[in-house]
Parts: sequence; structure tokens; C-alpha cells
Amino acid sequence: MTMAKRDTYTPESLLAVAVEVFIERGYDGTSMEDLSRAAGISKSSIYHHVRGKEELLRLAISRALDGLFGILREPEACEGRAVERLEHVTRRTAEVLMAELPYVTLLLRVRGNTDTERWAMGRRREFDQQVSELLKQAAADGDLRVDTDARLATRLLFGMINSIVEWYRPGGAGADHGDEVADAVVRLAFEGLRRT
Amino acid sequence: MTMAKRDTYTPESLLAVAVEVFIERGYDGTSMEDLSRAAGISKSSIYHHVRGKEELLRLAISRALDGLFGILREPEACEGRAVERLEHVTRRTAEVLMAELPYVTLLLRVRGNTDTERWAMGRRREFDQQVSELLKQAAADGDLRVDTDARLATRLLFGMINSIVEWYRPGGAGADHGDEVADAVVRLAFEGLRRT
Repeated sequence: MTMAKRDTYTPESLLAVAVEVFIERGYDGTSMEDLSRAAGISKSSIYHHVRGKEELLRLAISRALDGLFGILREPEACEGRAVERLEHVTRRTAEVLMAELPYVTLLLRVRGNTDTERWAMGRRREFDQQVSELLKQAAADGDLRVDTDARLATRLLFGMINSIVEWYRPGGAGADHGDEVADAVVRLAFEGLRRT
Repeated sequence: MTMAKRDTYTPESLLAVAVEVFIERGYDGTSMEDLSRAAGISKSSIYHHVRGKEELLRLAISRALDGLFGILREPEACEGRAVERLEHVTRRTAEVLMAELPYVTLLLRVRGNTDTERWAMGRRREFDQQVSELLKQAAADGDLRVDTDARLATRLLFGMINSIVEWYRPGGAGADHGDEVADAVVRLAFEGLRRT
């Protein structure tokens, strides 16, 4: 019904539109028709940019994964005591999640029906695994309360961090500040609620 | 294709089947036809038990909410220092989530397209609000690290607890024990990871 827009999309701006539609309708439930309607350009214009919706998913997921795996290469994640590296990775994971909110949201929601989704889930598990190793190392150094299983502690830690996508919305009046949220995550995870 | 089963359902056993279908297909995506197929009985047999799928949703959500609000009436949630009450509520919320896993999973996934869904979301917010008040009281008593906003801390706490639905599966080889999970939640939330 609407006039087709002139196609002034870059790969990035088209991706941003596609990710919103994927999140709203689910990846499986999104057709090229839906993407064309949301972008205001024809399907053939979309095919001018990408081979199809699975490529858009791969690009979106890659953006989230690049952000997350980039954390593990930061000097603060590689050098020093494991407990300090773990704290850095925790803070930065929360920060990257908020900075790349729609992309990480999409990553957390994929369920594995296509090759791209299975690849995404595998890479996400790899990230979790690397953080779990760091947690084990910190426990071995005697810096953590060691009576919680590393796999379980990592799951709860990521559960807390990942839940931010459910309610965090950047900007706007009364919005939470990303710094405040990242501080709260680190404090709750490392020091706990109770004053000692 | 399959022979219709003789209808030996009780309201509870029919509900258990419906909840699995709602979780798998989403409530919106579930038709009475889907429920009839999953239960192996005719649609008219289902209508013999309930008025329709919205009633099944209401019954399922009620079961989750009864479990959660029941916690707030337990003596340990009502008497004593707020920080101890908060710890009790945290542990019991994790326990009820695991004991009523499909029902709480459904509660956490509803998004508000029908009256029943909006009611569910409202009641869930009420529960969160009551826990948030408890957290504020514990902070006012000087028992918590007070530099984290109560609303934010409550969100992160529930984020951690609610994430259990993503991976916890009762029974089976190598399954996590509910007690171990509840202990880990309480320890992580109240004492934190770091040895002090």
C-alpha cells in the first residue's frame, strides 16, 4: 500500500530493519515479504544486498558474536588473575549486550532449525564454555567460593546478564543507564546482596 | 490418523498436555485442533472439560501464580528480618519454578494479547513488586549493600532465577538436582562469587 522507498540502504541499515522484524515475528515466522514491507523496498531490491533472509540472520548473529568474542581478546580478559579477568568479562558482556541489544537479543532467541541457527547456538555455547573455564581457574586460584559447580555458576551468571534484554531499553526518559546496570551486575555477581 | 483415545482426562492431566503444546507452539500459535491432536481426543471432548483454550491458559497460569504467591504467605516470608525473608523467598521461588516448571515457563512467556495474558502479566508484576519491597526493607535495615537500586537489583535477581527455565530438566541421568540449584541461586545472589 505504501509507495516503495528509493533504496538508499547500506548493508548495516538494512540489517537493522531485518533484525527488528526477526525479533518481532520470530526468524521462522518472517518472510521476505515481511522484510520488504518493513524496509519499504521491493524484494528484488533486498536481493540486491543479500542472498536471502538466512544471510541477514548470519550477518546479525555475527555482529553479536564479534562483540562477545572480542571481549575475550581484550587485554583485561587475558592478563592477570582469573577472578579479575572474570569480573572484566562479566562487566563487558553486560555492556556489549546493551550496546548491541537487538543483535544479542536475536542471538539469545535462535533455536536451531537452520544451519545458521545451529552455528549460532554452537558459537554461543563456545563463549559460555570459555567463561566457564575462566570461572574454574578463578576457583582453582582460591579466589571464589568453590562450593558451587562451575557449569551451574556460569549458567546462573549468564542467566542474570542475559535477562537484561527483557527490559533494558536505551535512551528515553527514566531509562536505566547502561553503566549503572553493568555496575549492578558486577556487584551482585561478585559481592552478592548481603552486607557482610 | 491416530485412533481417538477414550477420554480419561482429568482437568489436571488435560492441562498438563495443553501446557506442553502452548510452550512448544506459543499460545497464539496453538489451535483447538492442535490441542485435540496432542491430547488424542476430539475437540468436543476437550469442550466437555473447558470452555476453550483461554480457560486452559488461565488454569495453567493460576497454578504457577498460586505457587509463587503461596511463598509470600509462608511463615518464613512473613516473620523475622527482611533479609532473611528475602533469602527464603529467593530460595522458594527457585524451588517452585523447578517444581512447577512448565506452568512457570508459560507464565514467563506470555506477552499480553488477551485479557488472560494481561492479567497474568499484571499478577507477575505484583509478585515482583512485593519482592522488591522486601529488598527495600532489607536495605533500610542495613542488611544489604545499599548502593544498588532496589528495582534494578530485583530485576537481576529474578533474571537469574527465571533463567533456570531455559536449561533445568528434572530427573534423567546427569540432571541437576533441584536442591543444588536452589542453593547455588541463594549463594550467588546473597554472598556473590568472590571469596572475601
